[in-house]
Amino acid sequence: MENGKENMGAADKLALSKELIERLPKYSRVLGEYFYSSPGISKISSGHLAKRMNVTPSQVRNDLGHFTVSGQQGYGYNVKELYMSISEVLGFNNVKNCVLIGAGNIGKALIGNKMFNRQGFQLLGVFDIKNVGASISGIEIRHIDGLNDFAKEEKIDIAIFALPSGEAQKMAERVYALGIKGILNFCYTDILLPDDAVIENIHLIDSLIRLSAKLSTVRPK
Amino acid sequence: MENGKENMGAADKLALSKELIERLPKYSRVLGEYFYSSPGISKISSGHLAKRMNVTPSQVRNDLGHFTVSGQQGYGYNVKELYMSISEVLGFNNVKNCVLIGAGNIGKALIGNKMFNRQGFQLLGVFDIKNVGASISGIEIRHIDGLNDFAKEEKIDIAIFALPSGEAQKMAERVYALGIKGILNFCYTDILLPDDAVIENIHLIDSLIRLSAKLSTVRPK
Repeated sequence: MENGKENMGAADKLALSKELIERLPKYSRVLGEYFYSSPGISKISSGHLAKRMNVTPSQVRNDLGHFTVSGQQGYGYNVKELYMSISEVLGFNNVKNCVLIGAGNIGKALIGNKMFNRQGFQLLGVFDIKNVGASISGIEIRHIDGLNDFAKEEKIDIAIFALPSGEAQKMAERVYALGIKGILNFCYTDILLPDDAVIENIHLIDSLIRLSAKLSTVRPK
Repeated sequence: MENGKENMGAADKLALSKELIERLPKYSRVLGEYFYSSPGISKISSGHLAKRMNVTPSQVRNDLGHFTVSGQQGYGYNVKELYMSISEVLGFNNVKNCVLIGAGNIGKALIGNKMFNRQGFQLLGVFDIKNVGASISGIEIRHIDGLNDFAKEEKIDIAIFALPSGEAQKMAERVYALGIKGILNFCYTDILLPDDAVIENIHLIDSLIRLSAKLSTVRPK
């Protein structure tokens, strides 16, 4: 248990709810926009943040009460302090080692994003069964057979899954056995692993279907 | 109002909650897996579906009570009928015309997905300011200046935004003025439009940040 505690991140120490963790990346993005793009704005009100976050002002005050910077009624939050505090909780200063499994367009889109490095993610390896020896974003594509040896030499935190969906579950069990507990899953299927694994799904087509269903419920003006 | 009604889709006629609309693509995916991959399975229980959907069995029964196929206690749902009924509500049989704005990796990943066409999405045009005349997935890249004329000739339902984030809001206002009410937004910013627009965001980096924050809250076994 003591050992376990050492491995816990800041988010755990603060005992944040799952709902708040869901919202944190957006808080970070909104505050980052003010911090980087509007240096003149040093304070932001809970009402203004609430509008951007699409939640109520009291929800914002409740959420931000967990952080070291606390707003004063009528004065607003200090943008820089709040941004830094959330960044720390989200671990932007800690390097998270990633491997990409499946060297296709979606992987290129993700790791080509400038925010990928800026927020502490580092791509250590790319694995596939074809185009071995070619490179993607400057990283050589290795054969998937080499994954196990690679994982023994490097500490990998996150595997980015962009392989054919039918192979996702088997690969998930393999990376879990290698001690990789985080999966960003672009495969169009669900992955089942023990509770200490964390799987975040991005189903592009589901989002498009959802959009389409919502469109059909919007009444024309 | 009467005119408006004609434009409404099946999801609206059923008065589905937003929460259920969020879950529907996953119901469709799970049922589709059984329907296409396990032809031997003709019935599925609410308990089994609940496990796959990560909700309670009573939530499943409540959700599926909105559809024409109703499960009988102890007998389970007819997989084919349920899949077809949900597909109809999600409009898989109706073509949704899309344009892609920004011809990069993320757009390639989305439209290269075989589910894109299978579920009724059709890419009519691709717009960018560079590589004009080249093609992506067999569709010629047009200059963005031609978007307005194109939108007057074609009925476009959905614009897929994969352009630089700083240009997203301005482009959103432009496509909205052209009568395009649906945006699938891959830009790393939020878009503000009137209430009759529907915006679905996919922020790849946010998902990665969320994964990383959740990983730090997972206690090692």
